[in-house]
Order: sequence, then structure tokens, then C-alpha cells
Amino acid sequence: MGFFFFTSRTAARLLDGIARPGVSTAALLLTAASSGGLVAYADSAAESAPEAPKKKVLVLGTGWAGTSFVKNLDCSQYEVKVISPRNYFAFTPLLPSVTSGTVEPRSIVEPIRRMFEKKNKDVTFYEAECFKIDASKKTVHCRSAVGTNLDGNGDFMLDYDYLVVALGATVNTFNTPGVLEHCNFLKEVEDAQKIRESVIDCFEKASLPNISEEEKRKTLHFVVIGGGPTGVEFAAELHDFLVEDLVKLYPAIQKFVKITIIQSGEHILNTFDKRIAAFAEAKFQRDGIEVATGFRVVKVSDDLITTKSKSVGEEVSVPYGMAVWSAGTGTRPVIMDFMQQIGQTNRRALATNEWLRVRECEGVYAIGDCATVSQRKIMDDISMVFKLADKDNSGTLTLKEINDVLEDICIRYPQVELYMKSMHMLDIADLIKGAVGDSHKESMVVDIEEFKKALSHVDSQVKSSPATAQVAAQQGHYLAECFNKMDKCKEHPEGPLRMTGGSGHHFFRPFRYKHFGQFAPLGGEQVAAELPGDWVSMGHSTQWLWYSVYASKQVSWRTRMLVISDWTRRFIFGRDSSRI
Amino acid sequence: MGFFFFTSRTAARLLDGIARPGVSTAALLLTAASSGGLVAYADSAAESAPEAPKKKVLVLGTGWAGTSFVKNLDCSQYEVKVISPRNYFAFTPLLPSVTSGTVEPRSIVEPIRRMFEKKNKDVTFYEAECFKIDASKKTVHCRSAVGTNLDGNGDFMLDYDYLVVALGATVNTFNTPGVLEHCNFLKEVEDAQKIRESVIDCFEKASLPNISEEEKRKTLHFVVIGGGPTGVEFAAELHDFLVEDLVKLYPAIQKFVKITIIQSGEHILNTFDKRIAAFAEAKFQRDGIEVATGFRVVKVSDDLITTKSKSVGEEVSVPYGMAVWSAGTGTRPVIMDFMQQIGQTNRRALATNEWLRVRECEGVYAIGDCATVSQRKIMDDISMVFKLADKDNSGTLTLKEINDVLEDICIRYPQVELYMKSMHMLDIADLIKGAVGDSHKESMVVDIEEFKKALSHVDSQVKSSPATAQVAAQQGHYLAECFNKMDKCKEHPEGPLRMTGGSGHHFFRPFRYKHFGQFAPLGGEQVAAELPGDWVSMGHSTQWLWYSVYASKQVSWRTRMLVISDWTRRFIFGRDSSRI
Repeated sequence: MGFFFFTSRTAARLLDGIARPGVSTAALLLTAASSGGLVAYADSAAESAPEAPKKKVLVLGTGWAGTSFVKNLDCSQYEVKVISPRNYFAFTPLLPSVTSGTVEPRSIVEPIRRMFEKKNKDVTFYEAECFKIDASKKTVHCRSAVGTNLDGNGDFMLDYDYLVVALGATVNTFNTPGVLEHCNFLKEVEDAQKIRESVIDCFEKASLPNISEEEKRKTLHFVVIGGGPTGVEFAAELHDFLVEDLVKLYPAIQKFVKITIIQSGEHILNTFDKRIAAFAEAKFQRDGIEVATGFRVVKVSDDLITTKSKSVGEEVSVPYGMAVWSAGTGTRPVIMDFMQQIGQTNRRALATNEWLRVRECEGVYAIGDCATVSQRKIMDDISMVFKLADKDNSGTLTLKEINDVLEDICIRYPQVELYMKSMHMLDIADLIKGAVGDSHKESMVVDIEEFKKALSHVDSQVKSSPATAQVAAQQGHYLAECFNKMDKCKEHPEGPLRMTGGSGHHFFRPFRYKHFGQFAPLGGEQVAAELPGDWVSMGHSTQWLWYSVYASKQVSWRTRMLVISDWTRRFIFGRDSSRI
Repeated sequence: MGFFFFTSRTAARLLDGIARPGVSTAALLLTAASSGGLVAYADSAAESAPEAPKKKVLVLGTGWAGTSFVKNLDCSQYEVKVISPRNYFAFTPLLPSVTSGTVEPRSIVEPIRRMFEKKNKDVTFYEAECFKIDASKKTVHCRSAVGTNLDGNGDFMLDYDYLVVALGATVNTFNTPGVLEHCNFLKEVEDAQKIRESVIDCFEKASLPNISEEEKRKTLHFVVIGGGPTGVEFAAELHDFLVEDLVKLYPAIQKFVKITIIQSGEHILNTFDKRIAAFAEAKFQRDGIEVATGFRVVKVSDDLITTKSKSVGEEVSVPYGMAVWSAGTGTRPVIMDFMQQIGQTNRRALATNEWLRVRECEGVYAIGDCATVSQRKIMDDISMVFKLADKDNSGTLTLKEINDVLEDICIRYPQVELYMKSMHMLDIADLIKGAVGDSHKESMVVDIEEFKKALSHVDSQVKSSPATAQVAAQQGHYLAECFNKMDKCKEHPEGPLRMTGGSGHHFFRPFRYKHFGQFAPLGGEQVAAELPGDWVSMGHSTQWLWYSVYASKQVSWRTRMLVISDWTRRFIFGRDSSRI
């Protein structure tokens, strides 16, 4: 019995080191030891040996999309590997709070390995950056982010059956000269930490004895370029940091501080409801934050930002101490390279079909900020849709024939439903009526030209989803569900009728984004919120809604506790101004 | 009334910007506005104008010594300026805990401005590094640590009446080749953060798919050079981090991890009681931490550490993944330069007299790790001491004559008391007896030769204080007290009789270090403690003593709350392994 114990433990340890899922373990066990007890065990293992090797799923990225995918994936069905240069997930909506120290960087990150360990996920993680996707050979090339004291350059290659690209986006400087060199960004945790240090740097520099008043003014001029939610929230956080904390510690230079938001559009927060934009602008005016709308930044030097008025066309340069660039998202080089391989040139992000698969690319999926769903236009497929609906091949459609395929049409082309809703139409008959004239609903008959005419404006409702955490998380979840039921759905498809090419049904319903609203924190315990159903909420009470939502959305109890204790600490003790 | 209000506010603002303590404010006020109300105010200001300008105290450094000095200084008596490249105070004894994430860096730092704001200290702080002390001109040259986006090189000059040098020490590599390039250190908060990242880096690197078993072993070999309290505590923290947290997240590579402590002496913790050293070595052996004593590191390359056995003399090279050098303290370049100016060459630290004033230097004081008190030897002054005691100029001393000056001797030369204590002598008569033979105590008479003979071994008890936070804080406190009662003590000196040169008494009693014991955390909730009175305490219960002492010693309620909540978080959720 003692021997059995020893050998089985030895074998288990061996297996631990060598065996990979998919390799038959029976042979190994028999090699390790051939005691009676173990043979029985090996036999039972041999029985299950003929099982097909698991498909390899490779996930690139550990942001909202990537982690949401793995969290919801049934990892027992696949051999899952995750690659990311960051071994943690960051709760990015709280990044602006990190810039001022309202929340600590560690409170918003969760190690990837711990996330998956807690979910009992059998996932292999490699901390490395993917620098090349080779879709023809179904491989990706990666490079370790770690260098010091270690041999080799850390390059390696991995192959896949399914590739999930969730690499996110980078900043978009629109090729404005000087931006990369002189501006701060707000994409990664490190960026937020750097901004925090830079702000303190400016205050310390302006406190030195040999600084002229003019230079103090310059040093304490904080410029935010881009009036989107990130820029606005950062400006608000900075203002709070200033009036709640720094004023007490740097009273002598308080009067030199200025915050400016430069926005090329007419209003800040232009993706929000107009009431929210107006509320934000009024609040910022009261706070003394300058909102310069209608200006485009054309150049940034080490101490000047040059803007061009959109209306007048005049160029003006203003001295500044620190600038944060938050004006749009760009494409990562590896995505750019991959898009060129597959012929998707001149695009900002990878185009996928409605099932999040990269067009023209077998087995490659793309989710999150690095991808956009390119919704098929119904007008491109109109003849085939007509033919499919025209079951009796009469060349005309009756209302019944249309209604028979209407659900499939609406699932496949969601713009049809959106259009009808926007036009306050009750059913498809209302839509058709415009084309065939004022005939009676029941006896209505349309030919192909009338059908085209009726649907001609529908495609105007095609909208791409915004590049937000909410979209990315929903896409990850959706794709994981598809992977989980792949086998089942191949037999019992649950998608709509195939309109173009092929017969039968699509395996899955297409991805559909559900908008749950969005927040715009404006500082001073005031938050504006756009809620589902065209509701808008603003003020102090919304701050508490914001606290609850953000606390509940944390990925772990650890980060939830940390974020809440950070908020509490801020209430009691204020923010820390140590330059670390 | 409205006008008065306006002008007085304008004037106040002007003053805020321009006026410095010591400059008469009356003239400025009159220039700013000459309303009736203000003239009255100006008059009252003019009355207090003849007051002498305050003496300028310049403090270099915001470590234990510098902050302890300013905290205890009566800042209303002086014009105080503090210079440091770090705008925070760091609770350095918790640095080893930061390396593993048991405690967060921000939990152990407190902004200097906030520390002084809370104490209502009228102190000016500049975030800059002093790079030259010019004692002949009574000025220091400083350079701002901040560069980006700001004009000028940030150099400036400040003059002083009293200079308090509290710049601390740097690492001492003993000119071992490769140490500066390849080793980590543990002096600053940034060092601890870097070590934390490096440890995670090693684990991530060893988890990559293209790593051989040999390289894994190398990558996960953590070497601590120096078996002092810092090195030992770091090794213990690393071991805890490993077995409590990383094992769960990196199970596949757990077996390759090794921690080695290289110590040149025969035992680790050689400044502690022998029982503690033995306890620590036994615990580390149980934990699998290798303690290599009697080895000196002679070279460090990017992947090899070469050690030389002190006994055998043989050189051995071992591959390693990360190394921490904690083998002694060195001198900062600015201190080195200053020592050369004042002729203190070939020293490790600034020599001060027993009142912490730098020898050969008027108005300059040095405290903390950058200084050592050089205690005068009684044998150097023996003739003068004899002369002073010999009030009747008889050429001999009676016991009464000795006893009359004994207290002053013991205060001036504390080694006399220490020697008597070490020899278990009850009074000075016992000491003298050895020199004059077995005569009767009361009628004892000694000449100069016998007096010399009696005291000849006393100076062996002169010991320099260790370079610890405890010493630094006590020195800062002591010096501040001296500054506070300077005027009073010039009239009513409280120090001992001047033995060498001058007559009357020293203004102050010399500095005397009181040792309150020290801790050596050994990991696994075990701490060894050396307590006052030769007590030693080891084990789990001492951990709780350690928690209480370290929590109570925090400089603010904010850091106290943060450190305690960090400990709690670690108990509940473990340490974070995100690489940020």
C-alpha cells in the first residue's frame, strides 16, 4: 500500500509536469510504474483515450472583451491559452479616478491568473505581446515583455484552431506633430500613474524659489485635449484634486492654476444627450474650467499647444504645463498588419460579420475596441431576400409571405426593426404601404421594385457600436456562449434563415448590443447619467448611483473592497500627494 | 467699507506673493493702498517692525532624521526651509513588506507638506536635490528633480544660518563589479516597487512556453546579498509571498523556486542577539531558504553571481534570476564632496561632535545615516580633566575632588559609566582602586599617572550608534530641542563642565542614544525581537507585538489606517500579483 501510494504520487507529479490536455495519459502512467493498483487505474484511463483532442482556442488580450470571453467560456470543451502583455485585468472606467489618487491603481486591477483560478478555469496564460497573426498558417507570433537578467529574446509561436482577437485599441493622434512626445494618455494603468506624478511635478516645480509668475502660470496650466467622457472625467477629477486637496498643501500657488478642455466639436460629451452636455458645460463654467470648443489642436511642442479655430481658421499657441490627449482611438500595429494580410485596408478596426467572425478569415474572431461589426445592408441582398420570401415563385409577395420571413429578416437585418420604430410604424404593412399606395392591408401585394422602394431607407439605421467597455464585455460574453453551444447548434441551429448563399439556418443568432446607459462624472460629487429609455439623471443623487454601479461591477470581492475603502479613505483623509 | 475690504484683500494677496518672513511688511502695505483703514493697520505693523529677522534654518532631507527634527522644532523662532528630492516621508521599516505587496507603497508614505500642515508648522518645502554644500559662504546649491515640459534646469541657491544635514546614506557596493548594473536595492520606495515587479517578471518569464527547465531554475533563483535585518526580512517576505500566494497562481513552476541569502559573516543577523540569529537560521532551513554564510560576492554579471569562500578562497558562480543587494550603507556624493571641503577625508559618514554639530564647521549639524557622532576619548583629554578636578592644584586628586566632577565626566564621556557597568563596579572608587592598590576608599589619593592608568581601558567602550531609523529619529528630536531652547541655554547652560578649552558649562547635554530594541520579522507570522534589558522574544506572539508597534509608530492616522487595512486585506485576499 505504501508503494502504491508512492508510485501514484510520483506518477501524478510526472503528469503534472509533462502531460498536456489531449495527450493520452495511459502510456505515461504505465511507464511510470506498473504496480497492480496502477494498472487498474491505467485501464480505466485507456478506455477514454479515443476521445478527440480538444480544439485550441487562443485569446489575445485581457481587457474587457478577452476576460469576458474566457470567464463565460466552458473551458472543459477547449484547450484555452490567453496571451497578454499585462498579467492583469484593469477596470478601465475608474482610470480617471486613478489620475488624482481617488482610487489606487491596485484597487482596479485583478491578476488574470487569479480571475481564472477562482472560476476553476483550466486556462494557460502567457505574459507576452502578440506581434504577428498569421491566419494562413493559423499561428501567432509572441514576444515576452520581460527582459532583464534572462536569456533569449523571449519570442515564441503558438498555433490555434480558433483565434479570438481582443487586443483593444491604441491612442489616435491623427498624426498631430508632437503629441506622442509631449502628451500624456489615458489608456493604461501606467498612463494614469504617470499623469498623477506629472500633476504633482507641476505643483512642486511651481513652488520652487526661482520660478517667475509667468512660468508658474504656464506650469500650472493643465490642458485636456478631447471633450469625450474620458477627457471630461479627467478634468473633473483634476479639479476636485485641486480644490479639495492641493489648495491646502500649496496655498501660495493656488491662484495660478488653470484647467482647459479643448474640443473640436461644438460641445463636450457629444455622444451623450444634449441636456447632459449643457449641464456639464454650465458646471465647468462655474468651476472655472475653460471649455474651448471648436478648436482643433494642430501642434504640440514641449511648452506650447497650437490650436486652430474651426470657424475663424486662426492659429493660437498657448503655454502649458501638462497635457492629456484623449481624442479618439487608433489601431494597434499588429491589427494594422493583420488587416493588410486579409485585405481589410483603410479601416480603423477589424471588420467582423454579425457573428463577430473576421470577414474573409476562417476561425478568427475579433471583439472589443479592435473590431467593428459590419452589419450587412439589406439593400445589398434585396433580390435574394425577395426570392426567399416568394415561396410560390409568383414574382410578387403577399403580406403573409412577408410575415412568414419577417422575424428572420429582423434578426438578420436589425435595421429594419430600428427603422420601423423610428418611424413609429406598428408593423411591416405600414412600411410597405408607402411603396404600393393606400391599398387594403390584407390584400396587399408587392413586386420586387415596390419591395425595394419600401426598404430603401432602412439601411440608414445601421450604426456601429461605440468603443466602450460595455460593448466589449457583451461581445466577449456572446462569443463564449456561441463557443459553448457550438456542437449543439451545428445540429439544431438557432439563428435566422440564411438569406445569402447556402440553405437552412445560421447556427447562432447574430450579436446584438444592448445599451444599459452611461455615466459622466463631473466632479464635486456630481454625476450625469444617461439611462436606458431616454432617461437622464444629473446631480448628487446620481453620484450614489454611480458609486453603487461601479462597486457592483468590480470583478472580484477584493477589488470591490479596495475600491470602496479607497472612496472612504478619500472622504476621511483626502487624496495623497506624494510623488510616487 | 466695501473699498476697505477690497484693498485689504488685494494687499493681503500681494503680501502673500511677495512678503517673506523677516521683511518688514509695513512699507509694502502702504504702497499697495493708502485708505484710512489700512494706514491704521500699517501703523500697528510698524510697531512690531524692529524685531530682529529670524535665523534661517535649512534642513536637507525628509527621512527619519529630517522630519523628526522639523516636527519637534518650534518653527515660530526660525525661518525654516526643507529641501528633499522626495516630497514625502517614507516609513522605511515597512519597505521589505512593500516588495511582496503585503503593504502598499502609498500606505507607508506621508506627504511632507501635509505632515507640516497638520502640525501647523510654518515651513517652506522645496522638492529638489542638494548637490553642493558651501560651508564657507553658508549656502547650498539645489537642483529641481522635475524636468519635463518646464523651462530651465531648475538650479537654485539658498543661504542659511543653521544647516541641518539629514541626507541619509546610499548603498555601498564595496566597488564590487556589476552590482550597480544588475542588482536591486532596498533603500527607497521606488526600489521596493521595482523588486516587486521583478519578482512577478521572473514568475511570468518562467511560465513561458519556450523556457527550458534549467532556465526556469535560473530565473526563479532569488538571491539576497547581505544577511542583515533588511536582507533577512526581504527573504522572509519573498518566501511568504511564494508559499501563500504565488504557489496557487503558478503551480507548474513552483518546484523550481529557490531563495538564497549570501552572508559574508559567520551568521545572519549578526547585530542581533545570538539566540535570534540561531532561531532565524533554523527557521530558514525548515523553510528551504539557503543561508550561505562565509561567502563574499566578488562579481555580478547579468545572469551569474560569483562568490568567494572566505575559508577555502575558492570562487563559485551561480546563475540567478533576481538579486537584491543589502550589504551595507555608503556615502552620498554630496556628503563626500562636503567632507573633502572640511578636511574629513577617508570617512564613511560626516563626523559630528557629541552635540551633533559637524566638527570644524560653524552652524552645520548632521543627523541620521549621513553622520556619526565621534565621541571624544577621555584619554585624549586626561590631563585637562585631571587639572579641572584638581581644584586645590595639589597635583593629586582626592575621592571627593573626583566625585565633585564625576557627573560632568560621565555626561561628557559616557564610556566611563558604560565601562563601570560592564565591569560591575558600583562607584568610581572601584575604578580607581585598581590603579592605586587596595587602599581605603575614603582616604584614597591619586596622581595623574594613577588617574590615567585607572581610566586607560574606558575608551574601549566607545561605540558608534547603528545606522537605524531609531537613531535618526532620536537625533532629530534632540537637535530640535536644542534649537528650541538655544536662547535660554545660552544664559542658563544645562550641559556639563567644559573639560577642554573655554570655561563654564556646555549649553546642552550631549546627545545620548536610547536603544528601545529591534525586530526581525522572519516570515510565516513569526518575528524575533530584541527588547530593552537583554530580553529576547520569538514566535507568533511577537508578530502581534510587531503589528502593534509598527501600527502605533505610523506618522499619521491616514497611514495607520492604510497599513492596518493592508494587513487585513492580505489576511483575507492574499497579495496582489499584478505586474504594475
